[in-house]
This record gives sequence, C-alpha cells and structure tokens, in this order.
Amino acid sequence: MSQAPASPGQRLIGTVAMRWRGTSLELLDQRLLPDQEIWLSLDSAPGVADAIRDMVVRGAPAIGISAAYGVVLAAQSSAGADWREQVEAAVRLLAESRPTAVNLFWALERMQGRLAECATREDAIEQLVAAAVEIHEDDLAANLAMADHALGHMNAQKPISVLTHCNTGALATGGYGTALGVIRRLHETGLLVNAFADETRPWLQGSRLTVWELARDGIPVTLNADSAAAAILASGKVSWVIVGADRITANGDVANKIGTYSLAVLARFHGVGFMVVAPSSTVDMALESGAEIPIEERDGTELRQVRTVPMAPASVAVFNPVFDVTPAGLIDAIVTEKGVVSRPDTQGMKRLFG
Amino acid sequence: MSQAPASPGQRLIGTVAMRWRGTSLELLDQRLLPDQEIWLSLDSAPGVADAIRDMVVRGAPAIGISAAYGVVLAAQSSAGADWREQVEAAVRLLAESRPTAVNLFWALERMQGRLAECATREDAIEQLVAAAVEIHEDDLAANLAMADHALGHMNAQKPISVLTHCNTGALATGGYGTALGVIRRLHETGLLVNAFADETRPWLQGSRLTVWELARDGIPVTLNADSAAAAILASGKVSWVIVGADRITANGDVANKIGTYSLAVLARFHGVGFMVVAPSSTVDMALESGAEIPIEERDGTELRQVRTVPMAPASVAVFNPVFDVTPAGLIDAIVTEKGVVSRPDTQGMKRLFG
Repeated sequence: MSQAPASPGQRLIGTVAMRWRGTSLELLDQRLLPDQEIWLSLDSAPGVADAIRDMVVRGAPAIGISAAYGVVLAAQSSAGADWREQVEAAVRLLAESRPTAVNLFWALERMQGRLAECATREDAIEQLVAAAVEIHEDDLAANLAMADHALGHMNAQKPISVLTHCNTGALATGGYGTALGVIRRLHETGLLVNAFADETRPWLQGSRLTVWELARDGIPVTLNADSAAAAILASGKVSWVIVGADRITANGDVANKIGTYSLAVLARFHGVGFMVVAPSSTVDMALESGAEIPIEERDGTELRQVRTVPMAPASVAVFNPVFDVTPAGLIDAIVTEKGVVSRPDTQGMKRLFG
Repeated sequence: MSQAPASPGQRLIGTVAMRWRGTSLELLDQRLLPDQEIWLSLDSAPGVADAIRDMVVRGAPAIGISAAYGVVLAAQSSAGADWREQVEAAVRLLAESRPTAVNLFWALERMQGRLAECATREDAIEQLVAAAVEIHEDDLAANLAMADHALGHMNAQKPISVLTHCNTGALATGGYGTALGVIRRLHETGLLVNAFADETRPWLQGSRLTVWELARDGIPVTLNADSAAAAILASGKVSWVIVGADRITANGDVANKIGTYSLAVLARFHGVGFMVVAPSSTVDMALESGAEIPIEERDGTELRQVRTVPMAPASVAVFNPVFDVTPAGLIDAIVTEKGVVSRPDTQGMKRLFG
C-alpha cells in the first residue's frame, strides 16, 4: 500500500472500494471478495488499464473514475518534451480496457478536454487531479440525486420488495450506488421489505459483492439463482426490478450485465416495474439504438470454471456475452441524476439529454 | 463394486449411469462428474434413499428406476415373518427421499402392486426384480418413442438449433434421455445444428452433465449462462426450447428444474417453440394444476457455495427452490411415449391420459 502523504492540492478521497492517495490509486481487489479484502496500489496508467481489464475494479461508473485517475498517474509519470503524447497514449490504452461501458470513454474525454487546456506538464498534473476528483465526487453526488428521483418516481406508499441483478453499489460507483443506491435509500426511509439479489453468473457479482455490501450495511437481502427470478416475480412479492446500465442509447435502449434483458421480459410479463438507474455519463446520444453497442464477450473459462474450480469439460464450446441489450419498450423508467425518463423513447431521451 | 455373479432370473441391465447387478445397484456418482467417474455399489433400500436424497442419482425417471431397485434390495434383505412389513417400510423410506418428481411415487406404487400379488418372500423377490427391470427397460423404450413423436411434431425441414436446461439425458433416465433424447435423435437424423445448454445453477447439471454427455457422443453443444438464454432466443438462432419434467398435472402444468418457467416465458415472448418431453409416468392426473405440486427447497449452501467453494458470505439468506411450475398456456407441446399433447389443457391431457 502507498504510504505517500497527501501533498498540497492533493486530497484523499475514498469509498469502500477505491482510494485516491495523491500519487497512487488504491483499489480493493473485487475478484477476491467476499473472502479476502486485499487492496492493490497502482501507480501507472498501464496498471490501471490491467486492473480494469482483469476486473479488479468493475461497474461502469467505477471504471470511468478509475480510468480518470489512470490519466493522472500517466501525467505524473510523464517526462521530457513529449510528455503530452505520453499522456495521450495512456488515454488510448485505458480506452481499450473494456468495450461496452460508455462511462469509461466519457471520463477519458473529459480528462482529454482538461489536458488540452493546459500549457505545461505541471499545470496539467494539477488540473487532471482536480478533474479526476471532480468526476469521482460528481458520481457520488449523482448517486444520491438518482436515489431521490427514483423514490419520487416509485412513490411507494408502503414497504416493498425489489429484485436486483449484478452489483451496482458502492463497489461499482464513486460510492453509494446506482440501482443499489435506490435500494439503500428505500431501506434508509423504512420502505424496504427485502432485496432479492440474483447471484449473477458467470462472475457472481450478486453473491460475492451485492450480498456482501448489503449485509455490511444491515440491509435485508436474499440471494437467489438467476433462473429463480421468474418464480420470484410470479409469486407477486416484488414491486420493482431495479438494475444499472453500462450504456444507454438515444432511443432509450440499455446495455447492461447479461441477464438484464431476461429480467426486463419477465418483469413485463408479470406486470412488475422495470427501472434502470445510471448516471447521465452512461447515456450515449451518439448511438441511435442498442444494435450499435459493441457487446463484450469474455473467455469461456468463466463458464467452464467457477472461479478456479473446473465445472464443465475444458474443451466445451462456450457462448459468454457479458452484456445484453434491453429495448426501451420494456423499460418503465430510466433514472439519472438529471431526472427520470418515464417509458423511454427517442423523444423522452432527447428532452432530458438532448 | 459388487462382484456377485448373475444368478438365474437376474439379468444384468445397465445404462451410462446405472447398473443392476442382481443383488446390488451400482450408480455413477453424478455429484463428481465430469472430473471423476466413480461408481457406488448399494445393497440396501436406505442406501438407495440416501443416494436419491444426496443426488448421487438425479433426473425424475432415473430416480423412479433407482427406487424400484431399492425395493428389490429391501425384499432381498428382508427376513422373518414380517418380511412384507419390512419391504413396505422401505417403500415409505424411499418415497420420502425427494418430494417433487412423481415418477418416484409411480414406480413405488407399481412395485407395491406387484408385492401385493406375491404370497411368499421368494416369490416377491423374483417378481420385484422382474418389475424393476421392466420399469427400467420400459423407460428406455419410452425415451425412444418420445424422440419419434417429438421429431414428427417438429417436422423440421432443415437442420435447427435448440436450447435445453438441466440434464435429461442417459444420466437422468433409463438410457437415451427425454429432452436430450430428442436432441440426440435430431443429431442422428442430421437435423441438429447446435444444442445450447444452460449451465443450470445451482447444481450445474448443464455444465457438468449435459455438456459431458453430449460431447461424449459427438453431439454439437454450446454452454451458456442461464441468464444468457434470453439473448440467445432474441438472436433468432434457436427454433425450440426443449426440457424435461418432474411432474405434469391434469391441466398440463409442468413442474421442472428451476429456470424452466423463465425459459417458457422467454420462448413465448420470442415466438420460439417450447416443448416438454417426459414419460407418461411423469403425468399425475390426481393433481388438478401446478399449484398443488410440492416444490422442494434445498439448502442455501448450494447457492452460497459452488460445489465446495464459498462464494457468498455464509450468513446470507437464500431462496433456493429446486423446481418451478410452468403453466400449460406457455407450453406448445407435451411429448410422451403415448403421443403428443399439442397446446396442452385439461381436455387434451384427458384424451391421452384419461
């Protein structure tokens, strides 16, 4: 772990899974949760890119924030006349770490914009630190605003149960959470009976992260197999399915963790509300619809094994898309810090994000 | 392993996962597949009941057959004047091993009926062996007939891809398979492009058993996460979802492995055919609808761990139903050895099974 003291102009800002130490980024290694809480200290942009690719850090907003700090590290370690080219090369490297979440590209563009305004390396370092911390703090503030908007939209008159997928909590964001932030807020205001958490194969973000995070904060949670969600919805126990997003297109289509689309179809079939909660940095108005979103496929080993334990024969063919696309027509509400798009479509999206 | 020679009136009959040895039942321990192929030799009814409860053997038809052999073992080890009561006690014990699959109760009733016809212990042993072998051989023959009926109903004009859930193959039956038997037959007749196999959490019957069994027989298979099935159906690649059943009620509702109901909703949404394949011993005309089927919930450890590897915190609450109920209205065809009930309802079921 970095022991560097905070120097002037460098603040210590941290969440449950990410700490900026002024000259290094500390990440809680989410691959080892919940059994081990090990922090990795990164002091270079390639190190941050590896951590994103290898899923030390995951969750669209947390990826964006980490990448922003990665750009700072690149500026700090740059040297010589071509220091600016070195930082820009680091930006390109970071952009290649994961293909689907747009927050990554959004954060890198914001960092590039700030870089372009700076004449000297010293100025750039100072400005980039400020920009990264701002992205981090803005994300946390956005989480809190989303929770407000979501509860207003739900207008629950009595305590309800909800179902969520993957991890969208403090671990996946600048703090608090997007979909999980809404669940957190429901609990804080006495409106939560229970949160059902899909285990979320193949990476088990639900059983390893969501359940760990909610239990840590004393929020009632029940773990279920992904395939049991339909039976839970059929039981009538759940009022809302609440999920995050990795990219939202101009027509309101949503790319999110594999299984989200399945839940959207099931929620519609059972008359259960389906809510997507994400910062506006997830919205990509440059893409017309979900058909244009690149969907990352990860190695089949994630399915052939569970963590390091072999399950299926090593030779079996595997289809392992990490995300799927939910068409806007199946979504009841997209909630961002800017407000709510109810029954999203191109018009509704344009009103809030145009 | 039992080394007992086959004696007169005792035949050696075996499948890929089950061998009757005359005075013992050998079961391939399905908990250890695909990494280890270990056979257990059982010579008592309590041993068979334990094997069913602990899922050494699973799959509704295979459970029924195993229980039948368990009754034989009880008769063989019975002694004294109350030998008949001893066998009947064993029947009760076996009946309590799993609650949902009706084939178990069907097989035990058939064995009890045969027992009632026998005056002496010696006669009973001979008759019960014959009855158990008959149940076993009938199941295999039924599998083959189901495959015929299913292919006739599908009437595929060119090779198709299908998606299946859990394991319904030779491992789950007297041989060949129910839903997997149909896939086997599609392959044998040149009509199969690819079988997508849900991994089937929590017990991973798909990745551990289905994939192992299909690969062994050179049948093209691709493994996917349960939650990826929706995206696969949306891709238009799959013509039929084909599953087995643990119990079918008088109105055509189907209890089957958790996740089946989810697939039925998804298949309907995407306009993909949904076919249930099971022997008529799975049909329970005594129950009016799926609401009356007892649904087994297994220990939460199955979700907190993957096999023996901890995933979630040990204290987390878990909802772990092993089966769900698919209403008849979502099913395009129920295929048994007696024929096909298309768009099942009470009338259609009565015509074939009344």
